[in-house]
Amino acid sequence: MFNQKRIRDYGVKIGVLEPGIHNAITDVEGVTVGHVTLSEKDKQTGVTAILPHQGNIFKEKLIASSHVINGFGKTMGTIQMAELGTLETPILLTNTLNVGIAADTLIDYMLDQNPEIGRTTGTVNPVVAECNDMFLNDVRAKHVKSEDFIQALENTSVEFEEGSVGAGTGMLCYSLKGGIGSASRMMEMSHGKYTIGVLVLSNFGILSDLVINGRKIGQELKESILESYKEEDKGSIIVIVATDLPVTERQLNRIIKRSITGLSRTGSIITNGSGEIVIGFSTAQKIPHEKPEHCLTLSIIHEEEIDLAFRAVGEATEEAVLNSLVTAESVVGRDGNTRPAFKDLIENFNISLL
Amino acid sequence: MFNQKRIRDYGVKIGVLEPGIHNAITDVEGVTVGHVTLSEKDKQTGVTAILPHQGNIFKEKLIASSHVINGFGKTMGTIQMAELGTLETPILLTNTLNVGIAADTLIDYMLDQNPEIGRTTGTVNPVVAECNDMFLNDVRAKHVKSEDFIQALENTSVEFEEGSVGAGTGMLCYSLKGGIGSASRMMEMSHGKYTIGVLVLSNFGILSDLVINGRKIGQELKESILESYKEEDKGSIIVIVATDLPVTERQLNRIIKRSITGLSRTGSIITNGSGEIVIGFSTAQKIPHEKPEHCLTLSIIHEEEIDLAFRAVGEATEEAVLNSLVTAESVVGRDGNTRPAFKDLIENFNISLL
Amino acid sequence: MFNQKRIRDYGVKIGVLEPGIHNAITDVEGVTVGHVTLSEKDKQTGVTAILPHQGNIFKEKLIASSHVINGFGKTMGTIQMAELGTLETPILLTNTLNVGIAADTLIDYMLDQNPEIGRTTGTVNPVVAECNDMFLNDVRAKHVKSEDFIQALENTSVEFEEGSVGAGTGMLCYSLKGGIGSASRMMEMSHGKYTIGVLVLSNFGILSDLVINGRKIGQELKESILESYKEEDKGSIIVIVATDLPVTERQLNRIIKRSITGLSRTGSIITNGSGEIVIGFSTAQKIPHEKPEHCLTLSIIHEEEIDLAFRAVGEATEEAVLNSLVTAESVVGRDGNTRPAFKDLIENFNISLL
Amino acid sequence: MFNQKRIRDYGVKIGVLEPGIHNAITDVEGVTVGHVTLSEKDKQTGVTAILPHQGNIFKEKLIASSHVINGFGKTMGTIQMAELGTLETPILLTNTLNVGIAADTLIDYMLDQNPEIGRTTGTVNPVVAECNDMFLNDVRAKHVKSEDFIQALENTSVEFEEGSVGAGTGMLCYSLKGGIGSASRMMEMSHGKYTIGVLVLSNFGILSDLVINGRKIGQELKESILESYKEEDKGSIIVIVATDLPVTERQLNRIIKRSITGLSRTGSIITNGSGEIVIGFSTAQKIPHEKPEHCLTLSIIHEEEIDLAFRAVGEATEEAVLNSLVTAESVVGRDGNTRPAFKDLIENFNISLL
Repeated sequence: MFNQKRIRDYGVKIGVLEPGIHNAITDVEGVTVGHVTLSEKDKQTGVTAILPHQGNIFKEKLIASSHVINGFGKTMGTIQMAELGTLETPILLTNTLNVGIAADTLIDYMLDQNPEIGRTTGTVNPVVAECNDMFLNDVRAKHVKSEDFIQALENTSVEFEEGSVGAGTGMLCYSLKGGIGSASRMMEMSHGKYTIGVLVLSNFGILSDLVINGRKIGQELKESILESYKEEDKGSIIVIVATDLPVTERQLNRIIKRSITGLSRTGSIITNGSGEIVIGFSTAQKIPHEKPEHCLTLSIIHEEEIDLAFRAVGEATEEAVLNSLVTAESVVGRDGNTRPAFKDLIENFNISLL
Repeated sequence: MFNQKRIRDYGVKIGVLEPGIHNAITDVEGVTVGHVTLSEKDKQTGVTAILPHQGNIFKEKLIASSHVINGFGKTMGTIQMAELGTLETPILLTNTLNVGIAADTLIDYMLDQNPEIGRTTGTVNPVVAECNDMFLNDVRAKHVKSEDFIQALENTSVEFEEGSVGAGTGMLCYSLKGGIGSASRMMEMSHGKYTIGVLVLSNFGILSDLVINGRKIGQELKESILESYKEEDKGSIIVIVATDLPVTERQLNRIIKRSITGLSRTGSIITNGSGEIVIGFSTAQKIPHEKPEHCLTLSIIHEEEIDLAFRAVGEATEEAVLNSLVTAESVVGRDGNTRPAFKDLIENFNISLL
Repeated sequence: MFNQKRIRDYGVKIGVLEPGIHNAITDVEGVTVGHVTLSEKDKQTGVTAILPHQGNIFKEKLIASSHVINGFGKTMGTIQMAELGTLETPILLTNTLNVGIAADTLIDYMLDQNPEIGRTTGTVNPVVAECNDMFLNDVRAKHVKSEDFIQALENTSVEFEEGSVGAGTGMLCYSLKGGIGSASRMMEMSHGKYTIGVLVLSNFGILSDLVINGRKIGQELKESILESYKEEDKGSIIVIVATDLPVTERQLNRIIKRSITGLSRTGSIITNGSGEIVIGFSTAQKIPHEKPEHCLTLSIIHEEEIDLAFRAVGEATEEAVLNSLVTAESVVGRDGNTRPAFKDLIENFNISLL
Repeated sequence: MFNQKRIRDYGVKIGVLEPGIHNAITDVEGVTVGHVTLSEKDKQTGVTAILPHQGNIFKEKLIASSHVINGFGKTMGTIQMAELGTLETPILLTNTLNVGIAADTLIDYMLDQNPEIGRTTGTVNPVVAECNDMFLNDVRAKHVKSEDFIQALENTSVEFEEGSVGAGTGMLCYSLKGGIGSASRMMEMSHGKYTIGVLVLSNFGILSDLVINGRKIGQELKESILESYKEEDKGSIIVIVATDLPVTERQLNRIIKRSITGLSRTGSIITNGSGEIVIGFSTAQKIPHEKPEHCLTLSIIHEEEIDLAFRAVGEATEEAVLNSLVTAESVVGRDGNTRPAFKDLIENFNISLL
C-alpha cells in the first residue's frame, strides 16, 4: 500500500499463511480506513477511522466482540458490545485525552445519518479507542477537533498509509517511532475462502524487548548503537480485527483473544501502564436494528474449524505491529522530544532484519 | 405433578405469564428429571439428574451457558461451557462432598455411551452442581455412591417429585426444609410459542427474609410461632434453566442471569456462604460433535424479543423456589437435627399465604 | 433532605437495618453530590456529580469496582477500574448522548487540578454514566454543556435534592416520573461502625411491575386509575454505591453486585433495553498515585463479615429507587410528553402505600 | 534438579532475569511438589501434587487466582477461587478422565486433616487440573487411583523430577514428548527480594510451531528429519504460578495472565482443543479460615512495581515449557503409540539449540 516499505519488503515473512491482496485490514471486503494527521511542532497526533462496512451500520449491525489484554486504558463502547454482541458505529482511534470529543463527534455523525435515533428508536453506542501520545504530542492541548474526526470518517479508503499517520502520528513502539500498521491472512475452508485483517495502533514496548521473527534485534541495538537509550514503557496497543468468517460473538471473541500470541512474539511483556484492547467484528452477516417478524438465521463455522482463524489472527497481529514499526517516520514533537524511525536505523546502520 | 400440593394450590399466583402443562422444567420438550433419595438417620441426601434431551447429548450438544450469582460453590463443568457454549452431558445435582464421585460416575456413564471418547475423539466435560446439606446429612460420609448416580440418570421422567427428594433430601430453604422445586412459563412470539422451565435445588436463606408474592411471611412467623428459631444462612441454590427458545449462548446467558430477580423476590440477600449457580441450555437446535463440511445454521430470536424470556425466567425461578419450600417434608437427620416443613406450619397454625 | 417527602415519610420502611443521618449516599463521610438541572420545554435533562472524597482524587485514589447488570448502556471508565481497582475522578451522570461532552469536560477538570497529567505522569480515566431521557428531553440536542458539568462538580454538598433534578430531570421510573434517589444503611461490626450509601439514577420499569415493600401497587394502579397507560420499558438505572467499609476491590465487587436484590424487589425484570450499571467505591483507604518505597498496607474485613454489607446494599438500593420515584415532580417535556409524578397520584387519589 | 539436563544446560538462556536457586516453582519458600508416575504398557499417566505451603492450608488460606487462556478443559475449583480470592487445598494435576477421582480423594485428604469440615464449619473446595494424555495412555481406563493421589500429596519435596513424570507421564508437547517442567525468576524491589516460580504440565502444540528462544527449530525439524511427522494438536497446558510477592488477588490475576507471553514465545497459537488454565497463589500472607475480631491487614505492592512480575512470569513460563520438553523421556504407550523425546533428537541428530 502507498509505496511504503513494509516488513515483507525487508525479506521478513511472518508465519505460514498467505496474506490478502493488500495485506491489510481492508482485505476484508467492505472495510475502509481513513486518517487525519496533525503534525506540527507540539501537535503530533491525529485520528484513524475504521468503517466496518459501507452501508448504514446502525441499521445493519455487525457481530462484534472486544477483549481486554490490559485494561489501563480508556476505550469506550465495549460494555454494550459485550452485552449485545454487535457493533453499530464506525470505530475511531485517537489520543487518550481526545476520547470525549471523539465520542461526542461520533454521536453527532450517527445522529446525522439516523434521524430516528432519540426519536423513534433508542440511542447509539459510539466506539472509541485510544493510546497516549504524550511524549511527542502536547496531549493536554487536546489537538484533535470535531472536524478532524468527521474528516477521517468521510475520507476512508481501501488503501491507506501506515506508520506516523492518523492516530499513530505521535505514538511509539518499542521505544522507537510507532503508529498504524496492518496485515491480513487468508483462510481456506471446505465451504469457502475467508480473510482476517488486523489494524494496530502501536504505542508500547521497550527497545531491548523487540523481537523480529525470532531475532532479538532490540537487544542487539541496545548493545550496539543505542546503548544509552531511555526506554521506559508507558504505552498501549489497540488491535482492530476484521473478518468475513461467519462466527458468533463467542467464536469471534475466541479468535480476537489470540492476537496476543502475535503481540507476544514481537517481544511484548504487556506492561502495567499499557492499555491493550482488541476489538473485532465479522462482516459475514448483518444484524438488523429493527426486529423482523421471524427469527434471524446465522451461518457459523463449526468449532473444529476455528484453529485456522487462531493462527491467522496471531500472524496478522505480529505482522501489523512490525509494519507499524517499520513504516513509521521519525517525528520531532513536544519540547523537542523525538524518537528514531526504525527504517532510518536500518538504513543508516545497514541493519539486516533476516 | 405427583399429587403434591404446590404453591399455586395454596392460591398463590406468581407473575403474569402462564405456566406450561406440568408447570415444571420438563415442559420443555425432551427434558426429563430423575431422583435417588437416600433418607435414613444420618444419611439424608441424594441425587437429582436432568437429561437435557433424550438422544446422545455428547454427539448432539446443546447451546448452554452458566452464570455465577455467588461463587462460594463447587460446581464443575462451567469453564468449558463458557468457552464452547455447549452442554454435552446430563446435569447431576448432589451434596457438596459428593461432587468428585458424581463427576467420576458421569464420566463413566458418558464413556459407556460413547466408545469413541478417549479413542478417536477427545474427552468429555461432566457437569455437576451441588449444595451443602451438612445440617441434616452426615456430609462427611459421602453417602451417595456411583450406583445412585447411575440410577438417577437411568430413571428420569417428565413427571417428578419435588421437595425433600433427590439432591434436595437434606437441603434447607429460608431455615425451613427445602430441596427440589420446579416451574415453567410459556412465551408467545410472532414466530411461535416457546417454554422456559426452571428447576431449583434450594438451600439458602433465613426465615425472617422469606417473602411469598410480596408478603413478608418469614417476619410474621419469626415474630409469632418461631420466635427463638435459629436461622444462620450457610446455604446455596442451584438453578437449572431449560428452554426451547432459539438463542445463542450470549442470549441464553442474558436470560439465565435474570433468574436472580425471582430469587430476590422470595427474599434472598445472596449471602457470602452461598454457592449460587445458574446453568441453562436451549433445546432449540443441536450442535453436532463431528464437524460437517458446511457451516452450521442457527436460528435465533432478535434481541428485541428477549424481554419476554427475561420475565419468564424470573417468574419461573420465584415459583420454583416456593414450590421447593412448600412441597418439602420435614426430615430428622444427623444428630437428630431437624427443620420444620413449611407445609406443616401452614396446616398446624392455619396460615393463609394470601 | 431538602424537605422532600421521601418513602419513609409515607410510612414505608424498607428492610431491617438503620439508615444513616441523611439516609443518603453522603452519609459516607467525604462524599458530596451536586446537580445542574436544565428544565425548560424540550430541554429536560441535566447532570449529577458525585465527589468520592474532598481531596485530590487523582493523587489519592479510592478502591473501586463496577458491575454490569445489563450492558445496553454507554458508561465510560469501567475498563480501567476493573484492571486497577481504583477510581481517580469524580463520577458524572447525565443523558446518553451527552457522555462524550461529559467525559471531555471531566478530563479538562482533572487537567486543571493536576498539571502533571500528560507531562510527568500518564493520563486520567474519566468515569461517566448515563440514562436515556429521550421521552421527555430532546436528547438529540445534547443540551448539557461543559459549563453545566463544571458547575455540578463545583457545587456539591452533603445535602442534595432528589427526584426530577440533575441527571434525573428527564428520567422515568416504572413509567412514572423518576430520577435521582438515595438512601443509606449503617453496619455495626466488632471493629467499628460503617456506612453504605446508594445513589440511583432511575429510568426503568413498567408501571404494572412496580412493587413497594411487597405491595403490587403498580398492578393496582394499572387496574384502577391508569388503565390505558402506555408503559413501554426503554430504560436504565445507574447505581452508585459508596462505603467506608475497608474492603478489597473483589470484596467491593461482591457487595455492589447485591444491589440487584433491592432493584428486583421494586419489581424490575431488567429488560433488554436497559443499561444497568453499578459503580462502587470505598473511602476507607487511599491508594497513592505515586509509588512509595515500601509496600502499601490495606485493612480489610474478613469475608465472614460481608453479609451485613450484602443486606445493607440491597436495602439501600431498594429505598433509593423508591425515593427517586416518590420525590420526583411531574415534567412536561419534548413534544408535550409527560409522565405523572407518583406523589401527585398518591395525593390526588388518596393512595396509601402501606 | 535431579541431574536432569535442562534447557539452560543446552546453553539456552531465556530472558533477562535471574532464576532462583533451583530454577523451579519450589524456589518460592514453602512450596513442594510430588509425583506418582504410572508407566507400564497402556498405562502412561500419573499425578503431580503441589503443596502451596507446609501448614494447614484450609485453616491458613492463600490469596489465589485463576485465568482461563482457553477453556476447553475440565479444571475444578476455580469458581470459588474467583469469588473468594483464596486457595484452601493443595493442587492436583492428572489426566482428564481422572479428575472426578482426584477431586474425591482430595476431599478425603482435606476431611482427614480437618475434622471440623462438614461439622462445625462448611465444606472445602478441591482444586484439580488436567490434560488429556489419550494418545499414549488408555485414558478410558482411569488408571490413577485414590492411593496414587494420596501418595503424591504425602511425598512432596523441594527438588522434583521433570519431563515424563507424574501427571506428565503421558503428555505431549509440540508433538514430541512433553510433561512437567518448571522454572523461576527473582525480583528485586526496593522493599525486598521476591520470587516467582512456575510449574507447567505441557500437552500442546504442533512440531512445526516450536520456537526455542526465537529460533524456529520446529520448522527446521519438520523440514529435515521429521518430514512425515503427524502433528495434530489436541492438547492443553496447565500453568501453576507461585510467588511470595505481597499482592491482592486482582494483582495476582494480572500477573498470572502474563504467562501467555512466555507460552506464545515457544510458538503456541492456543488451539481450540486445548484446555489452557493458569492457577496462581501468593505465599506472602495467610488468610485465616476463622474470622478474627479485628480487620485483616494486607501488605501489597504498588501497581507501578508490577512490571517486574509481569516480565518474570513470562520468562519463567517460557523456560518451564522448554524444560518440560527437553527433560522428557520417550514413552511407548497405548497401542504402541509413541512420541520421540526431544533430548534424543538433539543427541541423535547432533542438533544445537543456539
